[in-house]
Amino acid sequence: MTLILHHLETSRSMRILWLLEELGLDYELKTSQRDPKTMFGPADHQKLHPQGSWPLIQDGDLTLPESGAIVEYVINKAGAESWRRTPDQADWPDYLRWMHFAEATLQPYLLMHLVFSKLPKQAPAMARPIVSKVKEGVEGFIINPKVELYMKMIEAHLTGKDSFLEGGLTGADVMMIFPLESVFARIDDAGKKYPNTKKYVQGIHGRPAFKAALEKGGEYKLAPLQD
Amino acid sequence: MTLILHHLETSRSMRILWLLEELGLDYELKTSQRDPKTMFGPADHQKLHPQGSWPLIQDGDLTLPESGAIVEYVINKAGAESWRRTPDQADWPDYLRWMHFAEATLQPYLLMHLVFSKLPKQAPAMARPIVSKVKEGVEGFIINPKVELYMKMIEAHLTGKDSFLEGGLTGADVMMIFPLESVFARIDDAGKKYPNTKKYVQGIHGRPAFKAALEKGGEYKLAPLQD
Repeated sequence: MTLILHHLETSRSMRILWLLEELGLDYELKTSQRDPKTMFGPADHQKLHPQGSWPLIQDGDLTLPESGAIVEYVINKAGAESWRRTPDQADWPDYLRWMHFAEATLQPYLLMHLVFSKLPKQAPAMARPIVSKVKEGVEGFIINPKVELYMKMIEAHLTGKDSFLEGGLTGADVMMIFPLESVFARIDDAGKKYPNTKKYVQGIHGRPAFKAALEKGGEYKLAPLQD
Repeated sequence: MTLILHHLETSRSMRILWLLEELGLDYELKTSQRDPKTMFGPADHQKLHPQGSWPLIQDGDLTLPESGAIVEYVINKAGAESWRRTPDQADWPDYLRWMHFAEATLQPYLLMHLVFSKLPKQAPAMARPIVSKVKEGVEGFIINPKVELYMKMIEAHLTGKDSFLEGGLTGADVMMIFPLESVFARIDDAGKKYPNTKKYVQGIHGRPAFKAALEKGGEYKLAPLQD
């Protein structure tokens, strides 16, 4: 049975494509484009699964959404044990922690950052000064302090490292790459503020499997991360 | 070694407290209050872990944040196998999917809903009509459609069920209870629109372990869910 990956351009599903390339699994790729106006993917994707989200994988009767679940599933299917941790391993809690942190803690603030950054441009010209104040207020009170807190933590963690856990890349890196790419694409001065993290992301972008994924996946505005 | 749970009133950590009660593990509870003005928890919590978030558990040398990671850790520590799924079980992918969905997909839109719902009240009186329009625009374009899509999917999934997977409660239920409580607390008419889901939440709120957790954890505005 060949795995099918449903991929949306410039989205979370890029990391699954990268993982599939790293693990050398046989797979079929189905790529969708975003609507240039709304930036949403095609609505008929919901026919495949009611969640209507990307990435989505199909493997025989299984149709599975959710990056975290897909990463675990793909690693297990490939029998790629070094990419996972299990309860008998000392760094299992840390593995789980980064696996969840990426989307549960860091990414929600980046989503809010994206939504608020677009508000002033979309407001009528007369309302723009007020809307800009609202944006700056929420960014200053909630979004920026959280993103900075988390990025400082990551920057300290990644000092001298090219993977989140000891002993090479794991699912934790697959999960973390997307929010980190988003940080460098959207947060001013991120490259200066978080040099270890930048080096880490560039290390992943330099991998042959990542380059192969970039070639196959179509538009991906978040990579490669330039100097 | 006794597990320590760092808990913040009316927050995600309530579900870990509930889980500890269900599993009958020995634990020590340390509860923090929110600042009544900012609604943030105490900043010195960051001394325990740079992420500065709740729930946080300590177990000997281990200090672990992130609900999803903590749920897996606690279940494993208690040897409560029926509360987890492993790769050899057919419903493992589904288990992982709900484990991640709760915080990675549903909760971010509920966080945005909360942030936007507060904007008009916090704006100066003259700016309020414009800020209300912004709020309604983002709610109508992004937040409400997503929350409705996900809640319809959950409502269909929970028809006639009192757990997300067959065979009783698992970590997936522990993860899902918090965003679902948030939906009923914040979304108008949620009780009417999602009766199966409401019944499911009320089922959990009726459990002795949940009631014990409510008594021990201090203020928890999201439960019990009333008729």
